[in-house]
Amino acid sequence: MGQTLTEKILDDHLVEGELTPGEEIGIEIDQTLTQDTTGTMVWLQFEALGLEDVQTELAAQYCDHQTYQFDFKNTDDHRFLRSAAGTFGAHFSRPGNGICHNVHKENFAAPGKTLLGSDSHTPTPGGLGQLAIGAGGLDIAVAMGGGAYYVEMPEVVNVRLEGELEGWASAKDVILEMLRRLSVKGGVGKVFEYTGPGVESLTVPERTTITNMGTELGATSSIFPTDEQTQDYLDRVGRPEEFVDLSADEDAEYADEIVIDLGELEPLIACPSMPDKVVPVDEVAGERVEQVMIGSCTNGSYEDILPGAKMLKDREVAKHTEMIIAPASKQSAEILARQGWVAELMAAGVNFSEATCGACIGIGHVPASDSVSLRTFNRNFEGRSGIEDDNVYLCSPQVATAAAIAGEIVDPRDLAEELGDLEAPEIELPEKYDGSKADLISPDNAIDDELIKGPNIGDVPLKDPLGDTVGGETILKMDDNITTDHIIPATADILKYRSNIEKLSEFTLSRVDDSFATRAKESPGGVLVAGENYGQGSSREHAALCPMYLGIEAVFAQSFARIHKANLFNFGIVPLAIDEETYAKIEQGDDIEIVDDIGDGVRDGDEEFTCSVNGEWEFTAELDASERERDILAAGGKLSWTKQQATEGGSAPADD
Amino acid sequence: MGQTLTEKILDDHLVEGELTPGEEIGIEIDQTLTQDTTGTMVWLQFEALGLEDVQTELAAQYCDHQTYQFDFKNTDDHRFLRSAAGTFGAHFSRPGNGICHNVHKENFAAPGKTLLGSDSHTPTPGGLGQLAIGAGGLDIAVAMGGGAYYVEMPEVVNVRLEGELEGWASAKDVILEMLRRLSVKGGVGKVFEYTGPGVESLTVPERTTITNMGTELGATSSIFPTDEQTQDYLDRVGRPEEFVDLSADEDAEYADEIVIDLGELEPLIACPSMPDKVVPVDEVAGERVEQVMIGSCTNGSYEDILPGAKMLKDREVAKHTEMIIAPASKQSAEILARQGWVAELMAAGVNFSEATCGACIGIGHVPASDSVSLRTFNRNFEGRSGIEDDNVYLCSPQVATAAAIAGEIVDPRDLAEELGDLEAPEIELPEKYDGSKADLISPDNAIDDELIKGPNIGDVPLKDPLGDTVGGETILKMDDNITTDHIIPATADILKYRSNIEKLSEFTLSRVDDSFATRAKESPGGVLVAGENYGQGSSREHAALCPMYLGIEAVFAQSFARIHKANLFNFGIVPLAIDEETYAKIEQGDDIEIVDDIGDGVRDGDEEFTCSVNGEWEFTAELDASERERDILAAGGKLSWTKQQATEGGSAPADD
Repeated sequence: MGQTLTEKILDDHLVEGELTPGEEIGIEIDQTLTQDTTGTMVWLQFEALGLEDVQTELAAQYCDHQTYQFDFKNTDDHRFLRSAAGTFGAHFSRPGNGICHNVHKENFAAPGKTLLGSDSHTPTPGGLGQLAIGAGGLDIAVAMGGGAYYVEMPEVVNVRLEGELEGWASAKDVILEMLRRLSVKGGVGKVFEYTGPGVESLTVPERTTITNMGTELGATSSIFPTDEQTQDYLDRVGRPEEFVDLSADEDAEYADEIVIDLGELEPLIACPSMPDKVVPVDEVAGERVEQVMIGSCTNGSYEDILPGAKMLKDREVAKHTEMIIAPASKQSAEILARQGWVAELMAAGVNFSEATCGACIGIGHVPASDSVSLRTFNRNFEGRSGIEDDNVYLCSPQVATAAAIAGEIVDPRDLAEELGDLEAPEIELPEKYDGSKADLISPDNAIDDELIKGPNIGDVPLKDPLGDTVGGETILKMDDNITTDHIIPATADILKYRSNIEKLSEFTLSRVDDSFATRAKESPGGVLVAGENYGQGSSREHAALCPMYLGIEAVFAQSFARIHKANLFNFGIVPLAIDEETYAKIEQGDDIEIVDDIGDGVRDGDEEFTCSVNGEWEFTAELDASERERDILAAGGKLSWTKQQATEGGSAPADD
Repeated sequence: MGQTLTEKILDDHLVEGELTPGEEIGIEIDQTLTQDTTGTMVWLQFEALGLEDVQTELAAQYCDHQTYQFDFKNTDDHRFLRSAAGTFGAHFSRPGNGICHNVHKENFAAPGKTLLGSDSHTPTPGGLGQLAIGAGGLDIAVAMGGGAYYVEMPEVVNVRLEGELEGWASAKDVILEMLRRLSVKGGVGKVFEYTGPGVESLTVPERTTITNMGTELGATSSIFPTDEQTQDYLDRVGRPEEFVDLSADEDAEYADEIVIDLGELEPLIACPSMPDKVVPVDEVAGERVEQVMIGSCTNGSYEDILPGAKMLKDREVAKHTEMIIAPASKQSAEILARQGWVAELMAAGVNFSEATCGACIGIGHVPASDSVSLRTFNRNFEGRSGIEDDNVYLCSPQVATAAAIAGEIVDPRDLAEELGDLEAPEIELPEKYDGSKADLISPDNAIDDELIKGPNIGDVPLKDPLGDTVGGETILKMDDNITTDHIIPATADILKYRSNIEKLSEFTLSRVDDSFATRAKESPGGVLVAGENYGQGSSREHAALCPMYLGIEAVFAQSFARIHKANLFNFGIVPLAIDEETYAKIEQGDDIEIVDDIGDGVRDGDEEFTCSVNGEWEFTAELDASERERDILAAGGKLSWTKQQATEGGSAPADD
């Protein structure tokens, strides 16, 4: 039987397990990627593990989320990251140089390699045939230390593309169509492998828009085969020799197949406040728009900004609409500036900002109250933009720009008809990605050889090994689809504490219930209860670390998002699955105790645990965990476990 | 006897009083300028006064401080300002279009006209022969309503410029030299009129750097005569017809004369943390620099960025130094982009940001802890950058860029010698300031015809008429040179409450004592005690409004900064001067009561008031106030007074 492309790359990197869906496998990691909001904790953990040098082929540290540096804590974090990259041997991308995924794509992404990143949109370079997976920071720290990365072998789903995009339809509409069909849970435990005759019509930047936003499906990763488009892109970024010919075997077997006819796609838009609330643009046409933003790792590169720039040539942004462009990489901005497009955009009334993730996580350009914002980003979770009850729509740069011109949501086909001289812009790549590398500092040219910690940069908290009892009050009962943005918001006022767990934990779940942190801290033990897909969204391990710090011992949920579940193991919180009926029956405030000896049960491989509610009724919760995950849980988390392994093995990594 | 230029313009606009230094005069205002952090209160006051349309020749509302829009409250403020400009008839400059002073200079500043602005750097267009004065917001509201502006007739000081700037010396060094000689108190009650043969060598943008930063001397304004340079600038900005030939009479008499030989100036730098701590750059050379910023209303325009760009051509910013450029106007950025300089700057490793005041008031790009930041700004008050114990130096773009290249403070002459091929850049103006006007919305094209208030936009608090007793506990005793940044900090976390006095007042004087607001609120009555130059710095009226809201009834200080003293009158707080001995003797916590009937005393023109301390000892405090200021104080502030006048007069402005 032939192999899928995913299986081929995994096979090449396999160090433990078998490629059977649902089984845990360990794979070797070639490259890692960390950014500023998750990276500080990664390097603190790397330091706490007593590791000395990065062991992967390449590690790259980016500063992209907090580039506006609203607080000295942000700037201190950037300096710490520069010092960590220098000390331990990673590339360092300075603040303002761009978003990790885009800078990585332009500089390091390589077909056939594995990439592990502490950001949920790490799968972006899947568009070049790289197998890229997002993970919690601690997993990255271990991978940088040379350890394998463990993940449940995903199902591989064939997404067969037919036809070609026409008119105003774009790559963004491909992934919006996927979200429309499959929902934000539709990709859990899966890798989407794009195949079929439609692939060759898509440039690499279009492919990376699709693989990037595959994350919103809950997918482990998304990947395209390599071909002439891949070679062409690698030529343009000046790394032609990194091309590897990669595709699935003819007779590869997939777990499922989805067919999309590109030629039938029309401009789509995700309505507030979930990326899968997708409708054709004309269904929401006429809605007045106060803000339009082009940017983010999904649609913020040269190829994304240029269509908007062409549409705005000799036109102006509507007077009541603010249009902000935050380029995804400074290289993109520099090339656009050289070609005159930045001046044209400014002339049209665009506020051209720094290269940053920024507004995508509520850092800057927060929408006005009761107003509509159209963004080319990947997420529109309620409140993520920095204001509760926001109205954020997600769409392509073309649809966003059409709205900026009209001042309201409009199907660009209708706008084109109305204006008469507006044509659907072609997707163009620059002749060469020849921007300066001034902001990318290689390990050979490192600035620092020791860590520089500002006063806000704290220690990594540790947890005791798992005891025999786990439980406590149900401090919070939550609905379905709770995101890591709910658990630890990323807005600027909170983000600045990412390196300071004591302080950061005060904001835990404040978006759901602002008394949570206080109540959790006061309660001995304590558990969380949630519906489906708990912990979806960003990879931030702080969403497990902070509840752990507050004393949460277990989470009972109908289902868990992949990265967050791994993070729960990593920080010693027991993730237990419950059925719908049990979920419905438990009330906030209920006292839940695991009746069985949890410590022994976890170690012994027990999958079912009887739990007692207020001593009045019982239910069964399931623990779906690999042997390795059980060991980690028993040790009190991955940091303790990794240290313990090193000590038991009598070898490095040593402590201190 | 001949007249100074200042006297000529004042004479042209005089509606009350005589041009005798120290006497109060009333003048007609031709133009007003408001920005986003002071403007919301101005328009709320305009509304509260029941006024309908702007009565001045021109009013312009800018959005420049909070352009990063970190909070929806910022964005709501911008929308409110757009709606206010539309409703009442002002020009509206959208966020991202640039800093008020620079956009005003390029679009509206006119020789011979008066300009009143709710920003302390309003004197900027003095470089074009406009008499421009900063004032509290309420004064602007009244002026926009057609009322005169009252100010103490300043002394006019002749600053005679000889010679020409040479080599690496710049216009910034002229004003730094003034600060070195005169200190931040040296201009109180004065207008600096620049004359002499050196004037003609300075372009208008160089002149506006000087007039802009004259504010740091505490001056009422600064002004240059008009000449070929003025005509040349007006030609380039496309308004040649606005030229008026203006200069002092040959036999004008000045209160004082200062002579500066431009040819003898060398590169200067203001050390932390006061703009008058000026030394030659080489005295502090060698200090490692982590951040360099070019921007602000002082040195952020085309003519300021271009020298840095030329110096960086084919060079790179030092790897441990972050260089950020925030252009002062989008027009400047657009022209630089068209000429290719923005691309060059990006290539050199510069983070090119939005057009914003931003970092100058601690909004974005806050320095890292224990690090040095060199900025082309005008103020380096401790903590203003957003971090306590900051190390902010102020210098020219040339000195800043030299530091960015070297990674440490360096005299650019020494750097030039070291590099061999670095030449002092000439100051060049663009052929035409031909950027787009897309972001400037005239009253004729207004978007809104009614006010749009977000949930954070509150009411204007009012105070009761002055009673017969004033006093209370000395809730805070402060040192010399307390700035309005101390009284109401401008950092992002606080700035967002500028339209919400109840919330904003919680931060009053928190930079001096974070228990102040709570203690003031709990205390019945209450007074403040301060040393010299109380209330220097920004014009923000919130520095009087918030203490008023907290119940502060009087401020005893050795001396007051001009705008702040006017703001104290405007909000019904009694500003009383004390001598050094009394200042030394009063202790925080002392109970100070004015023994005389203060209400009657203020109304009757009493200048001395006996005050009792803890009923144990007495001192005499002086009230230096015009009849008008006494009326305002007696009425409980200018808003009540203006409404009262309207009612008494039986005419508009009516109160609903």
